[in-house]
Amino acid sequence: MPHLLDWHGLDDSIWKQQLDAALLHHRAGTTWSHAARGKSIALMFFNPSLRTRTSMELAATQLGAHATTLVAGQGTWSFAWDEGVVMDGAEAEHINEAVGVLSRYYDALGVRVFASMTDYEKDRSEQLLHTFAQAADVPVINLESAFHHPCQALADAATLKTHFGDDLSGKRLVLAWTHHPKALPMAVPNSALLMASRLGMDVTVARPDSYALDPGVMAQATSYAAAHGASVVEMDDLDAACDGADVIYAKAWGGPMVYTDPDQEAQIRQQATDWRITADRMARTQNGVFMHCLPVRRNVVVDDAVLDGPQALHLLQSEFRLHAQKAILEYAWDLCTPANARNGHALNGHALVSALA
Amino acid sequence: MPHLLDWHGLDDSIWKQQLDAALLHHRAGTTWSHAARGKSIALMFFNPSLRTRTSMELAATQLGAHATTLVAGQGTWSFAWDEGVVMDGAEAEHINEAVGVLSRYYDALGVRVFASMTDYEKDRSEQLLHTFAQAADVPVINLESAFHHPCQALADAATLKTHFGDDLSGKRLVLAWTHHPKALPMAVPNSALLMASRLGMDVTVARPDSYALDPGVMAQATSYAAAHGASVVEMDDLDAACDGADVIYAKAWGGPMVYTDPDQEAQIRQQATDWRITADRMARTQNGVFMHCLPVRRNVVVDDAVLDGPQALHLLQSEFRLHAQKAILEYAWDLCTPANARNGHALNGHALVSALA
Amino acid sequence: MPHLLDWHGLDDSIWKQQLDAALLHHRAGTTWSHAARGKSIALMFFNPSLRTRTSMELAATQLGAHATTLVAGQGTWSFAWDEGVVMDGAEAEHINEAVGVLSRYYDALGVRVFASMTDYEKDRSEQLLHTFAQAADVPVINLESAFHHPCQALADAATLKTHFGDDLSGKRLVLAWTHHPKALPMAVPNSALLMASRLGMDVTVARPDSYALDPGVMAQATSYAAAHGASVVEMDDLDAACDGADVIYAKAWGGPMVYTDPDQEAQIRQQATDWRITADRMARTQNGVFMHCLPVRRNVVVDDAVLDGPQALHLLQSEFRLHAQKAILEYAWDLCTPANARNGHALNGHALVSALA
Repeated sequence: MPHLLDWHGLDDSIWKQQLDAALLHHRAGTTWSHAARGKSIALMFFNPSLRTRTSMELAATQLGAHATTLVAGQGTWSFAWDEGVVMDGAEAEHINEAVGVLSRYYDALGVRVFASMTDYEKDRSEQLLHTFAQAADVPVINLESAFHHPCQALADAATLKTHFGDDLSGKRLVLAWTHHPKALPMAVPNSALLMASRLGMDVTVARPDSYALDPGVMAQATSYAAAHGASVVEMDDLDAACDGADVIYAKAWGGPMVYTDPDQEAQIRQQATDWRITADRMARTQNGVFMHCLPVRRNVVVDDAVLDGPQALHLLQSEFRLHAQKAILEYAWDLCTPANARNGHALNGHALVSALA
Repeated sequence: MPHLLDWHGLDDSIWKQQLDAALLHHRAGTTWSHAARGKSIALMFFNPSLRTRTSMELAATQLGAHATTLVAGQGTWSFAWDEGVVMDGAEAEHINEAVGVLSRYYDALGVRVFASMTDYEKDRSEQLLHTFAQAADVPVINLESAFHHPCQALADAATLKTHFGDDLSGKRLVLAWTHHPKALPMAVPNSALLMASRLGMDVTVARPDSYALDPGVMAQATSYAAAHGASVVEMDDLDAACDGADVIYAKAWGGPMVYTDPDQEAQIRQQATDWRITADRMARTQNGVFMHCLPVRRNVVVDDAVLDGPQALHLLQSEFRLHAQKAILEYAWDLCTPANARNGHALNGHALVSALA
Repeated sequence: MPHLLDWHGLDDSIWKQQLDAALLHHRAGTTWSHAARGKSIALMFFNPSLRTRTSMELAATQLGAHATTLVAGQGTWSFAWDEGVVMDGAEAEHINEAVGVLSRYYDALGVRVFASMTDYEKDRSEQLLHTFAQAADVPVINLESAFHHPCQALADAATLKTHFGDDLSGKRLVLAWTHHPKALPMAVPNSALLMASRLGMDVTVARPDSYALDPGVMAQATSYAAAHGASVVEMDDLDAACDGADVIYAKAWGGPMVYTDPDQEAQIRQQATDWRITADRMARTQNGVFMHCLPVRRNVVVDDAVLDGPQALHLLQSEFRLHAQKAILEYAWDLCTPANARNGHALNGHALVSALA
């Protein structure tokens, strides 16, 4: 089953194919094809969304398919997740039935289910995402789970390729922790780190001491980097990290301490207001660009001067969500023609015709 | 006006045609046609939905039509229903205007409006559903009202025909009341009872003494059964009811006492935890199948062992919602060609072409 | 950029073209075309909607485009609006990013953002609407803002032309303030007044002394009327205003006092229950018609006898929302062929073919 639960874990041939397809859709501009005519996807959100919901809906629509957006608990029933549960509480339906039914109707399912921020093992092991995927008889696309955000990773990779060209070796990306009023999940920093290291970039994770990312994720990223002769380093000095960098990828996250001592975590975070991307910090880079997955808190995570300046790529990243998710749907629905794939392109024959028409 | 307010009340020729059409859509698999091109339907939900909303949206889409889902009070205004009301309270719009306006835009309207559970006469007489339908100038499809759920009835009938073959005479269906933390409406048990008896099945309603269904519904079912030489019986012993049964159709409902003495009803219901479909009870049947309309409370209404076992038809029932509702839309929009109807088939010419293509 | 932020401010050639196009769509009945194939629009609602959301969704769909409805804060993030804000509060995303992103995905954006009712200058200057439009790279359509409702204005103009014929000079429209349990915004009365005066009608604004409309709006309307030799007058006697009128356009609004002394405003409004359109008042007109934008409070704003009688045009007004918004989308997306426009028609070539087919 061609699920897309994370992005870094895909075989080289597949993620490169997806990346090529995303870049093709970008170059072609908005296209409208019949490639997925008659197909449909349900997008189930357990958390808020603006970009993901709209870009996935349009990605499906522009391939000729139909998308339904569902917000759990808003017009739907509320769902139980645990195996063996005696459902005598508030939840009216088990996720097994919900997903089983939707699998009978739709040709793919998307799901967004954020980290609990209270149970590290559950979050780290992607328990809810896997429960959802196991109940499905059709491809499941992760629209951001506890630990991963593959749609964002693919869009970010395509953004980097578009900006820097195909060869990213020797480019240095700083994954910069920032202040934030809330302790946010780690799906985006995890995915950005694994994506950049898999592409052969040198990555610097700049964060206060208490905000180290998951050791397993760090080890995986280090292993990817090593295969390219690149590196992953950590430091707790944001200014130093910015010196000579090519990319500042800003993101707030709660870090492991939020699971063990949330009060202490909040106290540290709330005092770290200087962990913010300013024009001065961008000036330390080597003509570097600013990236963020959005939504972003202005003048908390990044100053207006940066976000509204010429170095900011956040809108291009968002645009690439549309192109990336077309590529992901083509993958999930096997719309790539073998002949094109053999030629090293991830060309969807139908989409290509419409792109070149 | 080809409203679909209940299912049992349709002429024999019509419900048989709908049933044939639902079975055809199932055999054809997912089809995509232009039969209803240019048409549209608004689906207004006053209560939660997962299956109904998604299957109706897809049924319309796969016929070439457009569906809009509206959840009353979530993004819309709130609605007044009473005739002659002085609208100086919280409700900003009368249902007469809402339905009148939607009738100008859409080619059909669906509405879900559950039982009040407080006013038996209002629920029994389908007051809200009739108010809605009377304000409409286009066909209205009942997506579950106080007393009836015709889309479910048609899907269930098609499920039974698919499992047992065309001849259901002599098959015995147990409509099994079950424990539930909430006092639920009677639309599904009413519809299942009337559907099964209209198809000529023997029906056993197994429920505690306090949970008799409406006498008018029981009398109607008895009359349908009699026309086939079949029977409708009631008993308060779930084990005995299961003995030798062909179908266990489980459903919780509040029963008439919830209207007159809700505290007493709650007390009885909460102690009736043994009214639950277990593997032992399924073993009493004659290789019987388990049915439920969903959503279902695991290990409260039915044990995991039954729901996850080979006797469970609940996902097939849900799948048939899609096929059934295509048939209902074809009926509402008069998409069946007379020639096909004359041949005893409810074939939609357009859909057929696409099914056989 | 062909935004549609208000209607009265459009050049004569444009609003006349839109009006012709709306009337054409009405005469043609529901049409379904490919004129806008591949295009898409996102509709963002910060306030409730029934007509606007459904009619705009269908207008886009029936032109071959795709519409996405977004309800701010229901499934999306919540938004900050102020420039330079330090976003350390509840809002997770700035409207600049939200609109910037949607501009990358969609070919047009619609937005509904009602008056604050607390900051007159902000409302009068359309601060939020302009913030939204300035952040957009695609046409923005006002789906009702603090001070204007251009989609309603165009629909109302087309309704008047349909009922009275092309020449509205000498016809008198009474914009009648009515009692209401809430202090409502002035977008609809402003738009109705400016629309009617721009069409050359004589307008009487009938309202209690404390409910004068904005002086700037009144002056603009007076100027439009003068260009036609028509007039705009005000009076505080609803019976007298109705005498011999051709149109009673009822609407409740809060008036300027709600911004300066809301308690006093509420007290005056709550005692003004006789400001209500009754059958007696309609009898004073010269075979006049009743208009209202909906939603309307029965027996508070207007009596059942009027709304359910033959003089009521409210459902036709609502129907014209669909036709008007097709015309507006054709304008925003430049779908009118020059040749047709030159002939004095606002004919969309594609739509016309489908209308005449």
